[in-house]
Amino acid sequence: MIVGLLGGGVIGAGWAARWVLNGHDVQIFDPDPEAPRKVNEVLTQARRAYAKLLTRDLPPEGALTFAPSVATAVEGAVFVQESAPERLDVKQMLLGRADEVADPSVILASSTSGLLPSAMQAGLRHPERLVVGHPFNPVYLLPLVEVCPGPATTMQVVNDTAAIYSSLGMHPLTLRKEIDGFVADRLLEALWREALWLVNDGVATTSEIDDAIRFGAGLRWSFMGTFLVYRIAGGESGMRHFMAQFGPALQWPWTKLTDVPELTDDLLDTIVSQSDEQASGRSIRELEALRDDCIVAVLQGLRAARPGGYAAGATLDQFDHHAPVDVIVDDDADRALRSPLSTMQRRVTADWLDYNGHVNDSRYMQLSSEATDEFLRSIGSGDAGEGGGSYFTAESHLAYYLQAFEGDELTVEVRVLDHDPKRLRIWTDITRNDELVATAEHMLLHVDRATGRVSSAPRPVLDMLGVVSAAHESLPMPHGAGRSIGQPRTKR
Amino acid sequence: MIVGLLGGGVIGAGWAARWVLNGHDVQIFDPDPEAPRKVNEVLTQARRAYAKLLTRDLPPEGALTFAPSVATAVEGAVFVQESAPERLDVKQMLLGRADEVADPSVILASSTSGLLPSAMQAGLRHPERLVVGHPFNPVYLLPLVEVCPGPATTMQVVNDTAAIYSSLGMHPLTLRKEIDGFVADRLLEALWREALWLVNDGVATTSEIDDAIRFGAGLRWSFMGTFLVYRIAGGESGMRHFMAQFGPALQWPWTKLTDVPELTDDLLDTIVSQSDEQASGRSIRELEALRDDCIVAVLQGLRAARPGGYAAGATLDQFDHHAPVDVIVDDDADRALRSPLSTMQRRVTADWLDYNGHVNDSRYMQLSSEATDEFLRSIGSGDAGEGGGSYFTAESHLAYYLQAFEGDELTVEVRVLDHDPKRLRIWTDITRNDELVATAEHMLLHVDRATGRVSSAPRPVLDMLGVVSAAHESLPMPHGAGRSIGQPRTKR
Repeated sequence: MIVGLLGGGVIGAGWAARWVLNGHDVQIFDPDPEAPRKVNEVLTQARRAYAKLLTRDLPPEGALTFAPSVATAVEGAVFVQESAPERLDVKQMLLGRADEVADPSVILASSTSGLLPSAMQAGLRHPERLVVGHPFNPVYLLPLVEVCPGPATTMQVVNDTAAIYSSLGMHPLTLRKEIDGFVADRLLEALWREALWLVNDGVATTSEIDDAIRFGAGLRWSFMGTFLVYRIAGGESGMRHFMAQFGPALQWPWTKLTDVPELTDDLLDTIVSQSDEQASGRSIRELEALRDDCIVAVLQGLRAARPGGYAAGATLDQFDHHAPVDVIVDDDADRALRSPLSTMQRRVTADWLDYNGHVNDSRYMQLSSEATDEFLRSIGSGDAGEGGGSYFTAESHLAYYLQAFEGDELTVEVRVLDHDPKRLRIWTDITRNDELVATAEHMLLHVDRATGRVSSAPRPVLDMLGVVSAAHESLPMPHGAGRSIGQPRTKR
Repeated sequence: MIVGLLGGGVIGAGWAARWVLNGHDVQIFDPDPEAPRKVNEVLTQARRAYAKLLTRDLPPEGALTFAPSVATAVEGAVFVQESAPERLDVKQMLLGRADEVADPSVILASSTSGLLPSAMQAGLRHPERLVVGHPFNPVYLLPLVEVCPGPATTMQVVNDTAAIYSSLGMHPLTLRKEIDGFVADRLLEALWREALWLVNDGVATTSEIDDAIRFGAGLRWSFMGTFLVYRIAGGESGMRHFMAQFGPALQWPWTKLTDVPELTDDLLDTIVSQSDEQASGRSIRELEALRDDCIVAVLQGLRAARPGGYAAGATLDQFDHHAPVDVIVDDDADRALRSPLSTMQRRVTADWLDYNGHVNDSRYMQLSSEATDEFLRSIGSGDAGEGGGSYFTAESHLAYYLQAFEGDELTVEVRVLDHDPKRLRIWTDITRNDELVATAEHMLLHVDRATGRVSSAPRPVLDMLGVVSAAHESLPMPHGAGRSIGQPRTKR
């Protein structure tokens, strides 16, 4: 499919990335001589984001060409998207030219964030094919696109446009009538104007205003809008109760902008019945659980997005700091002789369970791998290790003895079974209240990162290994060490 | 630490949950006879959420007692939080009573979402200890709490209050001066009023308005506020360019509420310099990458929060559907004889890499486990399986041959090595462009879910296994099958 794009700014470049990465050919017209560089920079960001976002393979990328005119950009295209600056005259000129040269079957969509489709339809030969498709930045990642027909637009064009956007992984929201600013930007502008007042009046800085959103309501808005959120806040008595409780606040002087709709019985009835429909029979408790699960998922996502977390993810990271790893070398020889070398604790969270309702087998491998990494760091290897080398795992053998469930506290104990300058054989016991849940045995090889070849570990690491091995020499070999699959088990 | 709570509605109960789960004793006063039931229901939801949210163990829960009066709720408490309905007279009565009976060192915090601290301080014997601590629902999960002093509040009280909230895992935002609605609710109310206009005017339904937020700007607001988001949208030319481009839109009739601050040079300078400080030297490209990583993390979190994803997570799930598993039984005997039973493909995403820059060892186990689950589903077992039984993994052995990196396309091929009614021995090859990256061998046992004991698989599953095993009888045993750790490797 060939797509014609008119305008290659932040929005146009975002469209180009979404189309190209979905395998479509893009012809883009932008008079700015810098446009090719700028569009390609956005495309690079988008490639990077998609590599993280998607598990499946993307189709081969479409071709991106820069057209010298509207006519060449539109030539052969089955869909045209205009993303020029928000000036009606500029948009009318570009769309008018496209309307002259494109086959009448070609849809002309405008990215305008606020101009009315009727104004853009005026003067077109084929106004029935013009529709607004208003996306949000970054266009290649945010799913929302408002599809807004003008009075002349056909339903066929509206439906086809929505279907095309869906095929690109977007969520089209078709509006029932045209209105300045459509729906989303009316909401965003209302908040934005209020934010400008707060700066203007010296109440808060831009950074404080941003924090007032992203550590609070913004977390909810990533998955639920205000109406559903407020319905839940109303508790057991639902939307009518919430409106009764907070309705009067609308009349309070909370903002500079006091023109407020009157909460008539009619408006109240409309809101309550639409809210009921939206909740589609789910109880407040179900909705609360859904809301909480989503907040948890968002917080955990933001914690993982950057080391130490970002925004509310950083707050969570501090709140949920791991218990420090307890490394015993030779300062407590007696304890060191009896116990394995280092331990790690981990509570089982719900995302570790599989369809059997118990911890998925691969999570034991993860636990053992994390504990082994902690151990490697404690002997001066690992990510903070000296020199250009690191231990790579060559083989692992796991045995699963008991099931573990959500909320279980699992302890991983690491010990060294054997080592030489290049090889390190590690044993981990995973226990719950001293009961053995699983074991894992790993053979690690020390690899020189520069050459990719097996090499001797640095002297300080080997010295540490010597100390800890000597302290454990008298410990018996664990049951199951060296076992292969299918061998009869020995009882522990 | 003992905490006195005045009011046990949605907000008071949320506070109770946050304090109790952090190990503090809570004494709560609420005249509603239903309060104990309601508070305990919120506490149950909060326990469930914390179990998912945190990896560390929480301290032992504090005691939750329901006090018959303000005086008994406050007795012995070192911190008091009032969360009564938004009526000044009610709050003044409760806070006044607490002020009478509590030691002057006890902080009195109000959860009010809009009343001025100065109004609540009037008439108190110790107005210097009154402060607003305005949380957001659900209080036990959302980090934001606005800390707003009145004119009489001491800085000591402000700082102590912020520190106490931080210790509960919250993000206190201390306001510089009191203002109706503080900062967050002024922003929320602006959006809410606009939403009511949209319903009132029949432009959109509550559900459409919610979608206009949660599929778009709401995803960004979960980690960045409007000012930083717009700075990035301004592209390379930054905040001044953005304001120049979109400033005029403020004068357009986009909302019913047209009282807008004038964009004077002074206001523009203030915004630009505050925005520069907020960006703290990060380039637009860095900010874009940060924004994209967070959107990706939020989308992936919302995809994992519910089967099939929720909100934008559902959109992503559809966009990123896995390639269908290619199951060959006996309809293509020739191909079945040559190839293993079923295959799965997976692109390596950045979150699979560890500090060595290659795929972490535990991800191979995850891949092999997922492919095995797919295979089990294909023979009628697994989560959609017949009867009350399921295969549990008893042992796994992994061998790692090559490193894999971001963007690599890995293929997992599954075959059956051996089976009897209760046992199933599986082999998986993980390859990249036909090169062997890793292998995994698993011994699975069929377990009756009701009894937890090893049992025979159902007849239809065994029949399927018989068919696929027969088709593979002539295949040679893979190299490394039955190997134990430390055994010399054979070349493939």
